[in-house]
Amino acid sequence: MAENRICNFNAGPAALPEPVLKELQANVLDFQNCCMSILEISHRSKDFDNVINDAIARTKRLLNIGEAYHVLFLQGGASTQFAMIPMNFLADGRKADYINTGTWSTKAIKEVQIQNKSYNVAASSEDRNFAYIPKEFSFSPDATYVHITSNNTIKGTQWDKFPDTGNVPMVADMSSDFMCRPIDMSKFGLVYAGAQKNIGPAGVCMVIVRDDMLKLIPDGLPTMLDYRTHVEKNSMYNTPPCFAVYAVQLVLKWLEETIGGLAEMEKINRKKADILYSAIDESSFYQGTADKDSRSLMNVTFRLPSEDLEKKFIDEAAQNGLGGLKGHRSVGGCRASIYNAATVENVEKLVSFMKDFAKKNG
Amino acid sequence: MAENRICNFNAGPAALPEPVLKELQANVLDFQNCCMSILEISHRSKDFDNVINDAIARTKRLLNIGEAYHVLFLQGGASTQFAMIPMNFLADGRKADYINTGTWSTKAIKEVQIQNKSYNVAASSEDRNFAYIPKEFSFSPDATYVHITSNNTIKGTQWDKFPDTGNVPMVADMSSDFMCRPIDMSKFGLVYAGAQKNIGPAGVCMVIVRDDMLKLIPDGLPTMLDYRTHVEKNSMYNTPPCFAVYAVQLVLKWLEETIGGLAEMEKINRKKADILYSAIDESSFYQGTADKDSRSLMNVTFRLPSEDLEKKFIDEAAQNGLGGLKGHRSVGGCRASIYNAATVENVEKLVSFMKDFAKKNG
Repeated sequence: MAENRICNFNAGPAALPEPVLKELQANVLDFQNCCMSILEISHRSKDFDNVINDAIARTKRLLNIGEAYHVLFLQGGASTQFAMIPMNFLADGRKADYINTGTWSTKAIKEVQIQNKSYNVAASSEDRNFAYIPKEFSFSPDATYVHITSNNTIKGTQWDKFPDTGNVPMVADMSSDFMCRPIDMSKFGLVYAGAQKNIGPAGVCMVIVRDDMLKLIPDGLPTMLDYRTHVEKNSMYNTPPCFAVYAVQLVLKWLEETIGGLAEMEKINRKKADILYSAIDESSFYQGTADKDSRSLMNVTFRLPSEDLEKKFIDEAAQNGLGGLKGHRSVGGCRASIYNAATVENVEKLVSFMKDFAKKNG
Repeated sequence: MAENRICNFNAGPAALPEPVLKELQANVLDFQNCCMSILEISHRSKDFDNVINDAIARTKRLLNIGEAYHVLFLQGGASTQFAMIPMNFLADGRKADYINTGTWSTKAIKEVQIQNKSYNVAASSEDRNFAYIPKEFSFSPDATYVHITSNNTIKGTQWDKFPDTGNVPMVADMSSDFMCRPIDMSKFGLVYAGAQKNIGPAGVCMVIVRDDMLKLIPDGLPTMLDYRTHVEKNSMYNTPPCFAVYAVQLVLKWLEETIGGLAEMEKINRKKADILYSAIDESSFYQGTADKDSRSLMNVTFRLPSEDLEKKFIDEAAQNGLGGLKGHRSVGGCRASIYNAATVENVEKLVSFMKDFAKKNG
């Protein structure tokens, strides 16, 4: 790591791989020797076509999906997807199942309510403050889709094994663990992910939609809110967020060529999480907040004996080059986000600091 | 200009001021010595708060607007605004006037039609293929707003003097000439501009909305499509496109501190346009496509005697370091986009090439 760089445990926008940042930097003034910045080239140029098409091809290879899926680069974040999903897939007479595992699931459900669409909460972990992933479900046999949030950044929980929804396709918000491990995409009708946690910078949301889902869409939606617009125009009905798409392309290249694919990425992510959760479990000073069988590989949430000590911990960590350890403002406590770009070395530095801090303050 | 940089006449994404690109480049690895990239810092951090609040303050100073206006940074481009405007301002019983001056106005009208809202086309220049700005209008006395497109990139026309709409506020798509000159904002209820032409890179759309317009918004809109959401949360209901906002901030700083404000910017823009239109008018080889009294300061559209010569012109220009001169794919011909960031020097280079090309091929 470059000497003047912090160990960044931000929850998102979050750390990006350093080789990706260096390539981005080089192309800010002169993109691949075309004598214009990546910020200045036309989205209708051959140069940008190569960027977006390479990003799509890499996504398909990494996720092992073929022609049946469309890879889109949209704007407005996952929050816009919360509204677009029911708008596109819940025409009159249709209903959806939602599983509520925290703040983001709750927001997704709120947008269904606003549109007066039919839905059923098939499971919820709200009874214990979202500290676990539900194991029992009351699925509707006639649901058009089952919506889940694959990883919950605020509470630090993650689906280890996805629920069996039979023939009903899952629709998943994977904003905070997209491409952290291989998944069986055949179970999913649509997957969406704001890029700024695991796959790129803020400003682009990846959407992967199965072709048969497009048949559900009613006519009459605003053009930009109809998935078919973006499928038909390869995400270029209007100007896409070119720089963010380019950054994602470089992260995907790094995942394929440097890491070696999602199975390798998962091994590294499990190693990082093991190091950090072991340090928490071996100590009586730190207390994990999520049930052990529901723990996230991405967001490790924990408490210290008092809020004063938590504040001291976060401040001293920052002084030691360990940033972004404050828990979400809605729950407090501490959180280390160890997305794909976080290195084993940085996690080891954090654990070393944690042990030292516990000794001095325990 | 750096030696390896082209003279960029792209219509958008378009040229950015070189000092802005250099500052962006420096902050890709280490943002203002915070030891993280601008791409990695949290949008909830003090660092990013400073970026967005400075951009807002500079916008208000440049446009000479006060507390009555809200400055927003949204996603989805002007195309999403086409839908949001009627959704927010045309509740039951309301209607709007639209002036149709080309492709973008037509698309804005289409989104009103999709939503089955009431509207009236108060003027149109479609009868002569949008080659002029209308001078006669049939405004509805009870319109909630009058929608105009201030500059038409494809046809190369621009409103020189805005129409008098009395007490009815104008809503304007200023994507392609935002901040090219001072304007009297008191006539506008809402102004929007995709950044990628005159104010920054692709990926962010600036929206400036007058406070009294917010009272028109009906309850029950999807959260992300309700302007009040973004006003209440200072454009950070969800993660904003941080890098693009930062780039806009630097362009605004350049406008204020290097150029000296919008009156100075207008002088430079008029000078560039005069040089280019004079070259066209003095030659019988080049033919401007817009009526003289409707010509755009931003997009100079012209034809050569044949399509073969146009192709040759564009190719030879590119070989001479003059890029982006192809007309929009829907109309053909040639177009030089000379937005704020285009320099007088680059326009002079273009004119010199044009004279030379006419001599050899005329």
